[in-house]
Amino acid sequence: MDKTTALNELKEWEFKISAYNLLLSTAMFDESTIAPKGGLEYRSERFAYLNGILYELTTDKKIEEIIIYLSSLDDLTLEDKRKVTLYLKDINKTKAIPKDEYVAFSKAQMLASDAWEKAKKKDDYSIFKPHLLKMIDYQKRFALYRNPDKDPYDTLLDDYEEGMNKEKYDQFFKRIKEEILPLIRRITEAQKIDDTFLYRFYAKDKQAKLMHDINAYLGFDKDWGYMGISMHPFTCGMSNNDVRVTTAYDEHNLSSSIYSIIHEVGHAFYEHQMAKEYDGTILKAVSSGMHESQSRLFENYLGRDKNFIANYFYKMKELFKEELKDVTLDDYYRAVNASKPSLIRTDADELTYPIHILIRYEIEKGIFDGTLDLDDLDKIWDQYYQEYLGIKSDRPSLGILQDIHWSDGSFGYFPTYALGSAVAAQINAKMRKDMDVKKALSDDFKKITLYLKDHVQKYGALYPLDEILIKATDQSFDPDFYISYLKEKYTALYHLDK
Amino acid sequence: MDKTTALNELKEWEFKISAYNLLLSTAMFDESTIAPKGGLEYRSERFAYLNGILYELTTDKKIEEIIIYLSSLDDLTLEDKRKVTLYLKDINKTKAIPKDEYVAFSKAQMLASDAWEKAKKKDDYSIFKPHLLKMIDYQKRFALYRNPDKDPYDTLLDDYEEGMNKEKYDQFFKRIKEEILPLIRRITEAQKIDDTFLYRFYAKDKQAKLMHDINAYLGFDKDWGYMGISMHPFTCGMSNNDVRVTTAYDEHNLSSSIYSIIHEVGHAFYEHQMAKEYDGTILKAVSSGMHESQSRLFENYLGRDKNFIANYFYKMKELFKEELKDVTLDDYYRAVNASKPSLIRTDADELTYPIHILIRYEIEKGIFDGTLDLDDLDKIWDQYYQEYLGIKSDRPSLGILQDIHWSDGSFGYFPTYALGSAVAAQINAKMRKDMDVKKALSDDFKKITLYLKDHVQKYGALYPLDEILIKATDQSFDPDFYISYLKEKYTALYHLDK
Repeated sequence: MDKTTALNELKEWEFKISAYNLLLSTAMFDESTIAPKGGLEYRSERFAYLNGILYELTTDKKIEEIIIYLSSLDDLTLEDKRKVTLYLKDINKTKAIPKDEYVAFSKAQMLASDAWEKAKKKDDYSIFKPHLLKMIDYQKRFALYRNPDKDPYDTLLDDYEEGMNKEKYDQFFKRIKEEILPLIRRITEAQKIDDTFLYRFYAKDKQAKLMHDINAYLGFDKDWGYMGISMHPFTCGMSNNDVRVTTAYDEHNLSSSIYSIIHEVGHAFYEHQMAKEYDGTILKAVSSGMHESQSRLFENYLGRDKNFIANYFYKMKELFKEELKDVTLDDYYRAVNASKPSLIRTDADELTYPIHILIRYEIEKGIFDGTLDLDDLDKIWDQYYQEYLGIKSDRPSLGILQDIHWSDGSFGYFPTYALGSAVAAQINAKMRKDMDVKKALSDDFKKITLYLKDHVQKYGALYPLDEILIKATDQSFDPDFYISYLKEKYTALYHLDK
Repeated sequence: MDKTTALNELKEWEFKISAYNLLLSTAMFDESTIAPKGGLEYRSERFAYLNGILYELTTDKKIEEIIIYLSSLDDLTLEDKRKVTLYLKDINKTKAIPKDEYVAFSKAQMLASDAWEKAKKKDDYSIFKPHLLKMIDYQKRFALYRNPDKDPYDTLLDDYEEGMNKEKYDQFFKRIKEEILPLIRRITEAQKIDDTFLYRFYAKDKQAKLMHDINAYLGFDKDWGYMGISMHPFTCGMSNNDVRVTTAYDEHNLSSSIYSIIHEVGHAFYEHQMAKEYDGTILKAVSSGMHESQSRLFENYLGRDKNFIANYFYKMKELFKEELKDVTLDDYYRAVNASKPSLIRTDADELTYPIHILIRYEIEKGIFDGTLDLDDLDKIWDQYYQEYLGIKSDRPSLGILQDIHWSDGSFGYFPTYALGSAVAAQINAKMRKDMDVKKALSDDFKKITLYLKDHVQKYGALYPLDEILIKATDQSFDPDFYISYLKEKYTALYHLDK
């Protein structure tokens, strides 16, 4: 084999993979947004078949040899070197697991997801419990197959965020626990912010009009982006110039779709602003934490800034003349930033959010190091909520059954959400040093998206999170930015002493 | 080979084909409705690759042997026998053409489509002309490869409508010419119907609300159907319970989207009401004329009936209180049925429509039998319009460049449009004998869709058009139904003597 042939074959293989990925993503987007329910069975059988073809392509022995060969070379470009590293990681992940066990796991995954849905609907943890235990068992075993000498949870943490492990997350969450928990308690005792007006009736088509304007201001352009409606909001990057986001309008919640869209548009810009030549390659597969940092940056650090709010508030008041008659900019700003302990992670405010993740992290850690009784995970869940947030669900659907992640065995994923928020804080701080963000928020958002492109987003997955952070902020990840941001913002908002 | 193995392999092959077809159709629907333009290049390269995979699958040598073997058996079920016949026809079509010529043709097709788009935009026939001549040349040659002893145009006519040929179409269009042309002339001299109010401003979202109601009444249900927006309306049947239609709202034309949607919903019901077990097989590939008969039946014979109109007219008046203040049911009924010679086929009314097709048929015939000067097709086009409809375009974009069909070599397709209208007339007449259609139009449309399912649609492509007609109406195709329908309707509408 010679280098040129190997690189060409790699490219051809990437192209084929990207073709199946594109079509299957399009089908997935269609499924989540508009596909008539009646055709589900016909579609799923066929998607399963084509996913199988994609799997065969992905695990092709010939390409494995090529990648291994390429990994032995010293004179690859930076991009090719990184690609080979990332592909090799994936190959080793698959190779370490005996095929029959992997097939059995895939089936168990489907059953578990199914059971989770039923359990959640019936509010009955016992339906899901045996499946959850199976998922834990599989993932523990697989992690040990892959890295026999490594702590299994460390292996999983690294899957979702290259370079992360328990030691690093422990340090991070320790700070959250020490600094944020007490702040939440102080706020719980402080005077409440009135946010009741957010829950009046806000007609869907007017909300849609408002979002159209907000998206236009963000620069989410229909030449490269499309916004659809789905039950759960998500972003799907087909290619550099084809990024889809979805939202769900709630007529009894004014700010929920606004902030869910700003969040997704943050993800969308990341997909859009990576180098175009990464399209259809693994260099688009940015880590969860990094991706989440950009959506959180948009949603919270920029979107909930009073300067940004002022930009859309008066349009919104125009649309909802009656509904917002008695509401000032300041009322609205305080309401969309108000904090209150709640049971559901996805509804949590910016301040209590990391506590939801802390709880999941501690439970996952306990699951994998054997310190938690797997028989009582639902009760343990509730105890954590009681201890950290002072509230407790009376139904498992509001407790351990609320998230989809564990139902397909995605352990180690949750921590990246809090990490993403903290990374966003660090980027936000640096950006505010480098440029007049307040001004850009009020009159030229494009300056911000260009800044993020140049400092963060263009790299795609070319570097791991920490290297991108060093490039963008001149230093390694430091949770202090996050802690200070939350403390400053919330002591001011609730008029607390520093 | 034994029968069971052969049938199983056929089934497996059909499943694979149907999987790629489903994905590519979903992608095509996405492309025509929502896909951001910026991603077009990335998408087309990948669609082309997967279309190639599908082509390889379709022309698989092994399956060809299986189908040839099956065609030699006598004891197949009716369904399998018909499938084998249809697949064999496709195989022979492909086999007769040398592969290199087919590849060259595909490329020429793409160039021709491209040139047609440019020519239409620049209103310059000379850009398209050399490509059109190439398409004619290819199709003539290919038709002779396939059936050396048959008139090439007959071969093409049979492609779009099994069993049809020049002789039969000649008889049909002779009647149109003799009976409908004079009627059109009489109407041109009669007192005009005032339809100007249809072109006032009608807001898009109100039109959408109205269509929601009309679709609900038609029974176009979101459990199996979805309506999107696209530049040109179309229907795409993914499977029995997943049928998509599109529309385009024109705020300066009240009835255009109403009737285009009713038309597409007619196609949609056909896709929905075929036997479910035909899904993913060639038994869903109903002929153009048959399919068009159902959309025309919905659009014209049912949708423009005063009883159906009465059903939505008052809702519509409620929505457009100001705009329709001065309009009565009768005014509206007459306006949406008014007839007037026009240049564009797709905008033509029910009466002049077949003349647009007659013109195309005569030109296609002349192209293939050599009686027309290929150098002057654009002028010939205009002469026909002048002669038959008394109007002439001053721009080729309103003349020979208006339709997409010839740009990819689809000669022989147009006649099925007029045939479809005539077939609809025959089915309509029989249905009105068998049941109280007027009543069903006003209060129970479901009776009509069920009737059509049982008498026509359930068969799918199990029989050719004429056999379905015999089953549904007890007689072969007879253009008299169409001629009488148009004469009766339009003499009454324009108060002419019979």
